[in-house]
Amino acid sequence: MLPWNQELAGKLHQETIESALLRGNPLGDPHVRPLWVYTPPGYDSSDERYPAIYVIQGYAGHVGMWANRSAFKQPFIETADAVFAGGDAPGCILVYVDAWTAYGGSQFVDSAGTGRYHSYLCEEVVPWVDGRFRTIAAPGSRAISGKSSGGFGAMVTPMLRPDLFGALATHAGDALYEYCYLNEFAKTARALRDYDHDILKWWADFGGRTPFTKEYDQLLVLVLGCAAAFSADPDGTPRLPFDPRSGEIIPALWERWLAWDPIRMIDRYADALRSQRAIWIDAGTRDEWFLDLGAEAFRAGLSRIGVEDHRVHFELFPAAHGGIDYRYPQAVTWLAHRLER
Amino acid sequence: MLPWNQELAGKLHQETIESALLRGNPLGDPHVRPLWVYTPPGYDSSDERYPAIYVIQGYAGHVGMWANRSAFKQPFIETADAVFAGGDAPGCILVYVDAWTAYGGSQFVDSAGTGRYHSYLCEEVVPWVDGRFRTIAAPGSRAISGKSSGGFGAMVTPMLRPDLFGALATHAGDALYEYCYLNEFAKTARALRDYDHDILKWWADFGGRTPFTKEYDQLLVLVLGCAAAFSADPDGTPRLPFDPRSGEIIPALWERWLAWDPIRMIDRYADALRSQRAIWIDAGTRDEWFLDLGAEAFRAGLSRIGVEDHRVHFELFPAAHGGIDYRYPQAVTWLAHRLER
Amino acid sequence: MLPWNQELAGKLHQETIESALLRGNPLGDPHVRPLWVYTPPGYDSSDERYPAIYVIQGYAGHVGMWANRSAFKQPFIETADAVFAGGDAPGCILVYVDAWTAYGGSQFVDSAGTGRYHSYLCEEVVPWVDGRFRTIAAPGSRAISGKSSGGFGAMVTPMLRPDLFGALATHAGDALYEYCYLNEFAKTARALRDYDHDILKWWADFGGRTPFTKEYDQLLVLVLGCAAAFSADPDGTPRLPFDPRSGEIIPALWERWLAWDPIRMIDRYADALRSQRAIWIDAGTRDEWFLDLGAEAFRAGLSRIGVEDHRVHFELFPAAHGGIDYRYPQAVTWLAHRLER
Amino acid sequence: MLPWNQELAGKLHQETIESALLRGNPLGDPHVRPLWVYTPPGYDSSDERYPAIYVIQGYAGHVGMWANRSAFKQPFIETADAVFAGGDAPGCILVYVDAWTAYGGSQFVDSAGTGRYHSYLCEEVVPWVDGRFRTIAAPGSRAISGKSSGGFGAMVTPMLRPDLFGALATHAGDALYEYCYLNEFAKTARALRDYDHDILKWWADFGGRTPFTKEYDQLLVLVLGCAAAFSADPDGTPRLPFDPRSGEIIPALWERWLAWDPIRMIDRYADALRSQRAIWIDAGTRDEWFLDLGAEAFRAGLSRIGVEDHRVHFELFPAAHGGIDYRYPQAVTWLAHRLER
Repeated sequence: MLPWNQELAGKLHQETIESALLRGNPLGDPHVRPLWVYTPPGYDSSDERYPAIYVIQGYAGHVGMWANRSAFKQPFIETADAVFAGGDAPGCILVYVDAWTAYGGSQFVDSAGTGRYHSYLCEEVVPWVDGRFRTIAAPGSRAISGKSSGGFGAMVTPMLRPDLFGALATHAGDALYEYCYLNEFAKTARALRDYDHDILKWWADFGGRTPFTKEYDQLLVLVLGCAAAFSADPDGTPRLPFDPRSGEIIPALWERWLAWDPIRMIDRYADALRSQRAIWIDAGTRDEWFLDLGAEAFRAGLSRIGVEDHRVHFELFPAAHGGIDYRYPQAVTWLAHRLER
Repeated sequence: MLPWNQELAGKLHQETIESALLRGNPLGDPHVRPLWVYTPPGYDSSDERYPAIYVIQGYAGHVGMWANRSAFKQPFIETADAVFAGGDAPGCILVYVDAWTAYGGSQFVDSAGTGRYHSYLCEEVVPWVDGRFRTIAAPGSRAISGKSSGGFGAMVTPMLRPDLFGALATHAGDALYEYCYLNEFAKTARALRDYDHDILKWWADFGGRTPFTKEYDQLLVLVLGCAAAFSADPDGTPRLPFDPRSGEIIPALWERWLAWDPIRMIDRYADALRSQRAIWIDAGTRDEWFLDLGAEAFRAGLSRIGVEDHRVHFELFPAAHGGIDYRYPQAVTWLAHRLER
Repeated sequence: MLPWNQELAGKLHQETIESALLRGNPLGDPHVRPLWVYTPPGYDSSDERYPAIYVIQGYAGHVGMWANRSAFKQPFIETADAVFAGGDAPGCILVYVDAWTAYGGSQFVDSAGTGRYHSYLCEEVVPWVDGRFRTIAAPGSRAISGKSSGGFGAMVTPMLRPDLFGALATHAGDALYEYCYLNEFAKTARALRDYDHDILKWWADFGGRTPFTKEYDQLLVLVLGCAAAFSADPDGTPRLPFDPRSGEIIPALWERWLAWDPIRMIDRYADALRSQRAIWIDAGTRDEWFLDLGAEAFRAGLSRIGVEDHRVHFELFPAAHGGIDYRYPQAVTWLAHRLER
Repeated sequence: MLPWNQELAGKLHQETIESALLRGNPLGDPHVRPLWVYTPPGYDSSDERYPAIYVIQGYAGHVGMWANRSAFKQPFIETADAVFAGGDAPGCILVYVDAWTAYGGSQFVDSAGTGRYHSYLCEEVVPWVDGRFRTIAAPGSRAISGKSSGGFGAMVTPMLRPDLFGALATHAGDALYEYCYLNEFAKTARALRDYDHDILKWWADFGGRTPFTKEYDQLLVLVLGCAAAFSADPDGTPRLPFDPRSGEIIPALWERWLAWDPIRMIDRYADALRSQRAIWIDAGTRDEWFLDLGAEAFRAGLSRIGVEDHRVHFELFPAAHGGIDYRYPQAVTWLAHRLER
């Protein structure tokens, strides 16, 4: 396998979308966003309509990173293309959505801290794509897929908008917040000893120097960005859900995070989940954020509310959090066979 | 410094106590227990009465381990002796209490899972010592000190029995349970994949083979023992406070643990804490169980309820959880100056 | 800073070179290679000639990876462009050379195991660039730069060809082989227990499944590729320089590796090194391969053979092996000021 | 199993030996040493003579540490006693030898840096024991056993003195020095950045403060002590076999270490090794010093020189370097059956 760019059998359209909802967002991030739409082989020579799979990034990911290359493996754009080119699955349109923010991510939610990324995805990107490409514009023909924070987005977006999304794939998606976040809070409290226990002092420092030259920079970006997504003040100021010196949980703020824990959302959104045609759940057994446990809990929750087994693919596999991109085309294949067409 | 046994300036009395309260305990552990009592230099040649400092072990510790030796440092028995021999502090009686169980520890609480170790300590060991040694039998002259689980015991015993204990030293004591335990629960859930998600299957396996030949043995012993201490059924069966497959917290059981979190006990036992003459709190800044954060939270809680600053020694120092035994004689020195005599 | 593609002030020419020397190479890798040439701002509007800095990748890197993006930082193509656009240094041509092989890398040497990558670089790429771009085609105006295996290439290429290269920058370049490789050999011997102690069995397995799903895959690729570069048989078979069961060094083969240790090459190539106008050496103080020690040793060797201090920039900085790409434009700036023009 | 002291079936004699050879040793360590001799059940009621197994400690171990206790397992003194008490093997005398030094250990060699510990063991301890206990004073009835540095001592002592020792057991014994030591040298070079690259400055600091409060203290003690054992100057000053800044090996000094590598000693001492009745070799597959590879190399070397297979027990087992004391009584059992009686 050659490591350089491969010719696609389908076609990648590198578009730009102007968002009204993101205009004037609290971080001053651009409201004109890249949006990549992939059409499968045969798209141009037919007038067939296709299901669409929306693809979202993990934390600190942006749409441009889907083109990143390494040795010995191809980027998802190419492995997904190969699914259709090789006849493993019937053609789908893939929509690579950008929801990057100055904090690295948005968690694909509407928030006073970062902006209205959930609404932008659902109310702007979806219609924009449906208006310009030959999608089948119905929830049974529209899926969403992602890893890590993207897996979180893939779980919660269909819960909130089952009228739009009727299938999903979550790879090591954020869930069971006591296991994926509390450890990070503890480490954050320690890191902030260098910053008078004030994450905004760190943020100011971080912005004025080479990023990621302190070992805790990655950690603090994530925690700050999630605080912006889940527990910002009305004026947009991110509030940590814990005392920055001792790490003691501040219940009122932590409850706001927990309200976004997919596991704790299951019962509230049971109908939406029961309406999904296909739910792919996987994670690595050594995931550093224990998202394998989150996957187990999500799977168990689906059973509890009566989602039929045949609609769910569940798999734990030996891996940590990184290097699991080879799973994405597997989920695409599985979804492509289950989306309505 | 020679690494072999040193002659003590004081004297160590290796005694045995027969406990009525531990008789017939649920694990069938012996109710006749070793009890070591140290008397300081000068004890035999005077009729002076002395304050007493009770010393308890960390998890999986037993009284015999106080005699363990290594290179380049002396056991606590000798470093504590040196405090008095060198004149750094006025003499105290030290009482090395054994609260070992078949699970490794008892957390120094009364529990249906292990036995009545709190009552044994307070109602049997204390009077036994007071009856046989020239202690000053008053709370202002009686302290308790320990590390890790022993630090936990040192925090909660005076809360429960301020009529007995009026001073304490906690070195990296268990506190802020979401940080010290949840990580262990997550790892436990993973480890139990080898045992059909059943910790009692592991326990049966562990008992029938060489212990600690599986990497998770240490972890599971601790979690099982704490479950026995904090969330046993009335019949003594330890109950994990989480789903053993997904790790999902079982609130009713977890609440029983949290009821024993020293941080969450502060307000309930505010009067007891305010009655303490001297409270030493320390922990290593890299403690693997984040007990430095627990220490911060304990310190903050004491302030909140109005414990006067001059009664508290608080210190974080660069260290992990292990190798901090050189701190113990420092606390002994500090306590010895503050106990009433 | 926006994370998406930035417009360059200069221009990146994504070219292709057909190599005669790589044709029929032992691994069947392509002899037509990508070659990216960057021309600085002002290049098109003048007829000025420019020094050239050759840029090579680390192990398992290929030229396409220079375009990879992440959040919070720009790829080197853009940070290097910013050096010239911002006036920090006078313009240079940058040449991004590809020396990828099926084993992940070539170490930029001629070898029976992979092909003639050193000769391809020196005898084909250099003249090709000089023939098509307005370089100053003299060693004093031609530098080479890289990180890790690329840093190794940047050290040894000018030693071998001081007639071509008169300056270099090595970031965490492979050196002091007992520290950077022996640990890997030990771990390799362990990993090969799963493969009857035969790295070629692993290689066959690796090629037939998803790469990097075993924890040791990265390690074995590196060791196999270096064996192909440094100790291949005349027929191209890579030979491990150690017994694959015990790890015992096979001196005759290990000597062939050591002959390529930059530290051990210093005296043999002292004249070449003394001819360099500028030598940048840096590394992170926590480098996982101890390349900070390699950097120290290289620096000390240069002093020993009489390279003048003012020609050398030496710096250790707090970092591990990864995430140090922000150093590259610093070296480019420094070199750009020292190259002859 | 109760964790406190068990009554032995045999008897432990805690003796003291006055050594002439250690008198005036370079570190001023005591020449009067503890020496523990265990006699098996039945010893006192018979006049039988017994084979003897000499037991030596790992680095920084001293004889007093054999009495250390923990939970869930017994000290070797008791598990070895159980071998004989339970009838698993015929009785042996066990001799617990102390070779501690101010640097933590002596490696059981004669050295200008620490003293004549090899001679003390062979020329003083052995005759002392034979003179006072009913041993069978012949090499076929005398074994030596140890772990880590003690395993090293157990390998080399019989090589040097096959007239005294005719059997051995090495558990994770130091061997294949490039794998067990070079990594430590690299880390040492880094640690010494805090001490002007001078290990004696660290030693002075270490001696004046609480030991092991710096993360590298353990490492530096080991490296310094081994330098004292293997590459001291004639006046006793330990010399590091590498440049303390860059880690570059100093061949003349490193050769002195390698002369003590059991693997490199095999051919020189082939006759001695072929004279051994029984050789037990084991190690954990994850040993942090790669002593599993050393074990493999030692085993392979024995084959190469023609040691018969039936005389060798070789075993790798899943473990790291620590927590493998349960192996010791297994080797004692195996040896007890093979020693001449």
